[in-house]
Amino acid sequence: VTGRVTAEYVGGLLERLRAQAPLVQCLTNSVVTNFTANALLAIGASPAMVDIPTEAEAFAEAASASLINIGTPHREQRDAMRGTARAALAAGTPWVLDPVAVGLLPVRTRLAADLLEHAPTGIRGNPSEVIALAGLGGGGRGVDSVDSADSAADAAALLARRHGSVVAVSGPTDVITDGIDTVRVSNGHRYLTQVTGGGCALGAVTAAFLTLDEDRLGTAVAATAVYTVAAELAAGGADGPGSFAMAFLDALATVDAETVRSRVRLT
Amino acid sequence: VTGRVTAEYVGGLLERLRAQAPLVQCLTNSVVTNFTANALLAIGASPAMVDIPTEAEAFAEAASASLINIGTPHREQRDAMRGTARAALAAGTPWVLDPVAVGLLPVRTRLAADLLEHAPTGIRGNPSEVIALAGLGGGGRGVDSVDSADSAADAAALLARRHGSVVAVSGPTDVITDGIDTVRVSNGHRYLTQVTGGGCALGAVTAAFLTLDEDRLGTAVAATAVYTVAAELAAGGADGPGSFAMAFLDALATVDAETVRSRVRLT
Amino acid sequence: VTGRVTAEYVGGLLERLRAQAPLVQCLTNSVVTNFTANALLAIGASPAMVDIPTEAEAFAEAASASLINIGTPHREQRDAMRGTARAALAAGTPWVLDPVAVGLLPVRTRLAADLLEHAPTGIRGNPSEVIALAGLGGGGRGVDSVDSADSAADAAALLARRHGSVVAVSGPTDVITDGIDTVRVSNGHRYLTQVTGGGCALGAVTAAFLTLDEDRLGTAVAATAVYTVAAELAAGGADGPGSFAMAFLDALATVDAETVRSRVRLT
Repeated sequence: VTGRVTAEYVGGLLERLRAQAPLVQCLTNSVVTNFTANALLAIGASPAMVDIPTEAEAFAEAASASLINIGTPHREQRDAMRGTARAALAAGTPWVLDPVAVGLLPVRTRLAADLLEHAPTGIRGNPSEVIALAGLGGGGRGVDSVDSADSAADAAALLARRHGSVVAVSGPTDVITDGIDTVRVSNGHRYLTQVTGGGCALGAVTAAFLTLDEDRLGTAVAATAVYTVAAELAAGGADGPGSFAMAFLDALATVDAETVRSRVRLT
Repeated sequence: VTGRVTAEYVGGLLERLRAQAPLVQCLTNSVVTNFTANALLAIGASPAMVDIPTEAEAFAEAASASLINIGTPHREQRDAMRGTARAALAAGTPWVLDPVAVGLLPVRTRLAADLLEHAPTGIRGNPSEVIALAGLGGGGRGVDSVDSADSAADAAALLARRHGSVVAVSGPTDVITDGIDTVRVSNGHRYLTQVTGGGCALGAVTAAFLTLDEDRLGTAVAATAVYTVAAELAAGGADGPGSFAMAFLDALATVDAETVRSRVRLT
Repeated sequence: VTGRVTAEYVGGLLERLRAQAPLVQCLTNSVVTNFTANALLAIGASPAMVDIPTEAEAFAEAASASLINIGTPHREQRDAMRGTARAALAAGTPWVLDPVAVGLLPVRTRLAADLLEHAPTGIRGNPSEVIALAGLGGGGRGVDSVDSADSAADAAALLARRHGSVVAVSGPTDVITDGIDTVRVSNGHRYLTQVTGGGCALGAVTAAFLTLDEDRLGTAVAATAVYTVAAELAAGGADGPGSFAMAFLDALATVDAETVRSRVRLT
């Protein structure tokens, strides 16, 4: 795998992203819309938070990619999410599912089960979410309380094969798999977990990267790599989560391909 | 009172909060969700913005505490708020009411009257809001335009006795009462009024502290004390409200019990 | 025009705004509520995000000004927007329309057409939006992809005359017209386009300035001038869009009339 998904490849995708400025539609939760849009702008993508019925479905056909994050799934947004997933699949628009708190809460769990029917190009979550999501269409596993991304590696691979998705599990080491090959990215900083949206915005950035190449595994790895290397750069000068969040947006905007190539730790 | 609620006690609660990392459910307004979640994360609590019907009620039973802030009360959220208050009372989950602009606007005034029936553990507001809220179930007082928290001290004590709540009135000096005893906290900085959510996030932090001890007055005082001491620390190096907001999150994350003990001014 | 709308006049309005602290009602999109409220607070206005039916209409009568930004127009907010525009016109409350992505998306395009019937005092948009909006009640022009504000100058003047509005088109040079006279403001910084809400918050600040004088052209120019000069000041010390956003709020709070007068470039 790392023969194909190399530091060299990852750095090149960052340059391609900035050249192409993909238009990323976001249907996301009310807590992180602002941070998500700013993260996309910083890295060089173009965010569009189009999330109401009729508009969302139409926009999914025009967008470069779509993100569906179910963190605060109000009724009107749920309708838009179902329509967007369907429209994205029909139009060939890559789309990412971020199954926030799935398994734990009933409305979003039903919603996530519906969304899975539309073959998400990418899925990004924490270990508990990925395990819960894998249980939805399968053996009925509950939500486990787990700490490392590796503990969700089997669930991630199962999800990936079942839905044809690339699945990224966040943690101190991120695990990313297409169901055949698996790559681990060991970058990042604990501050990312102390800023709300630290994971959610990565879902949006992953959607942006998925537009750059047919290789789902490679593009998802690149998204995580650039994002977590930027976090390391930002953490260096931060005095806490507030200054980290600010510096992280600066780092997303200024990190260059060479720095990503030299710092990324792929296995 | 200050025999019981001392600087020593307040500092100890901060350490307990970080050790326990209480899970705080927030149903709050769209303007401040992000800042509120970041403030909770910074201080060491775990935020969960679960605010849709069905999910919210269920989550109120599992959460350590709930916050209901009525700043932008859309229909679906109003339904969830009523169910959450009911469920929290039934489950014994402490919950805080932040009655934004009550008395002034009709929909939220009716909503606040309904919510009061579920015995909020804590109430946090500015003087006008506390006076208006006290008038809701009582003598029909309108909204006065008032400046100091002391001008709302009688209304606060009335509310506290009527609903069995601790009531915190924000101002240059904060007034906190359980209807029997009253404590004043004279920390803080005017920058807190120049950042949107400066008051709203304190409501969430108060919910977090209420989980730490049976003493409602003591825990609410501790929340205000830690929050306003952090504001003083942040204001020192700030050049305006933008850099203050960033530094405030850093200060919430880094302030230690000893600093709180030495700086807090309780009377 | 610049005989009337001078740097001297613009600086004086900033001082008047801080003395009067106008109350600005905002019905705006979920991505930028926080940034918009913070920008209003920083410059010295008082924001109130009252955006649900019944409350919004009542509040439009009491507010100094209202902003209607259609960026994420959920159903309940659309109802509130229609009522607010009607109430503002009836009550003589100046109000600003920010027609985000109009022309491109169907729900908001119908909404914008309805809102135009209530004679917005001000309209603020990017060139594509202003051109699309001008086509709504007129010749049916589609959305052009345009880069400079000047390319929308004719559409802006048409809109201004048709609806009795002042129209501000954002770009590297901002074009502001009342349909008779046109003023260009050549301040600002590209960072404003890399922070979500950089344009949206200007709509809110424009609403605040419109309360200060009968001269719609002059007050709208002053809003743009103060806002873009603050952006220049903030950009000086910024390392990227994150630190810029923070410094921009500081600059809005601290920029003085003299600095605006000496830096503003009006033609």
